[in-house]
Amino acid sequence: MAYHYKDSSSNYVHRSHSHAGSYNSYTGSHDHHNSNSHPRSYPYQPGPPVGADPQLWQWFAAVDTDGSGALSVTELQQALVNGNWSHFDLDTVKMLVNIFDANHSGTIGFADFARLWKYIAEWQGVFKHFDKDHSGSIEGRELAEAMRSFGYNLSPALLTILQYKYAPGATSAYGPPPGITFDRFVRACVTVKTLTEAFQKVDTDHDGWAQLNYEEFMKITLTAP
Amino acid sequence: MAYHYKDSSSNYVHRSHSHAGSYNSYTGSHDHHNSNSHPRSYPYQPGPPVGADPQLWQWFAAVDTDGSGALSVTELQQALVNGNWSHFDLDTVKMLVNIFDANHSGTIGFADFARLWKYIAEWQGVFKHFDKDHSGSIEGRELAEAMRSFGYNLSPALLTILQYKYAPGATSAYGPPPGITFDRFVRACVTVKTLTEAFQKVDTDHDGWAQLNYEEFMKITLTAP
Repeated sequence: MAYHYKDSSSNYVHRSHSHAGSYNSYTGSHDHHNSNSHPRSYPYQPGPPVGADPQLWQWFAAVDTDGSGALSVTELQQALVNGNWSHFDLDTVKMLVNIFDANHSGTIGFADFARLWKYIAEWQGVFKHFDKDHSGSIEGRELAEAMRSFGYNLSPALLTILQYKYAPGATSAYGPPPGITFDRFVRACVTVKTLTEAFQKVDTDHDGWAQLNYEEFMKITLTAP
Repeated sequence: MAYHYKDSSSNYVHRSHSHAGSYNSYTGSHDHHNSNSHPRSYPYQPGPPVGADPQLWQWFAAVDTDGSGALSVTELQQALVNGNWSHFDLDTVKMLVNIFDANHSGTIGFADFARLWKYIAEWQGVFKHFDKDHSGSIEGRELAEAMRSFGYNLSPALLTILQYKYAPGATSAYGPPPGITFDRFVRACVTVKTLTEAFQKVDTDHDGWAQLNYEEFMKITLTAP
């Protein structure tokens, strides 16, 4: 069984002043930001794009609380919850927006949302697969197994660091940290993937060593989710 | 004017099974975890330690909602808010706990809390100093000025990455990202400090280049806040 997940290469830097509301590209209609001659007030609920899944459209419209036609990071964060009803972290939501914000608008249009929804559903499958004890979170051994399955050869020391970094915070001084919730598990996996690929790119002769200057080092580490 | 802030070296890995409730070391009384023969129910509100600031003790007791005598990450997160009343991020709270959790219990006792409180107050002064336009958040130029004052020579590209990474998320496709809230500003500064110092430690001949193997690279990047 192979698990694929999309590249998380960040778009922090190159944000063009492109349009929000990319769902309009589905229908070919003008983006609402072009309609300066037609001032309108929120909420603004156009119909679904041709061929859209009606259920998905309904969800999108429900999450788009200001009716702008595109989801902001804040709107998405309000909508995305873990199995224990905790909200996704801001940094996980920002990571997802960076992955799926096709037009670099900083928001998620309906077409982006459809892809994001599929991605989350796939990750839910992965999460369930590795949550062997059905606890609703990923504990130490489950995390080790997941990383091994993804092809990352992480030392026990690195696995322990990951476990503490992505756990919601130790609730007791006794025993291991609590398990990792869904959204932070996704962020952990994408972070390991991003960092590993960045390292491999610099390690051109594949000897396990990379030479980096300060600028490259900071760029790689700060652009990881 | 010099700005000092404490080292954020993480304690993810080495958590001894030491006692929570470090405030007891103030009074020399037994930690409640030893009192197995005296089962008690929460809330549990012992008096303040000798010499404690009564106001600070009152705050501590108010934040300690389960009356355990030590603050969990969750309790601290509920209590710490930015100027706009948004809660501190989980990752910022975990960073603070890692800095001030003297006995590696994963929780914050009263003595830890007193130091944490002072640290936050000092950072509030720093934040106000650099928030030149009194907007309540740190925007691009203010961030650049802060980093320069701290002695970090970050390129415009790195400053832009930082700005997007720590902003709460672009609310519009037009213009720069919103400013950085207090808690994320502190996290940004501690992260840059941690990463820069880790790089300098590896760059033993100080030529601006560092050679790292995969294990070291991952350890440095994953232990940064």
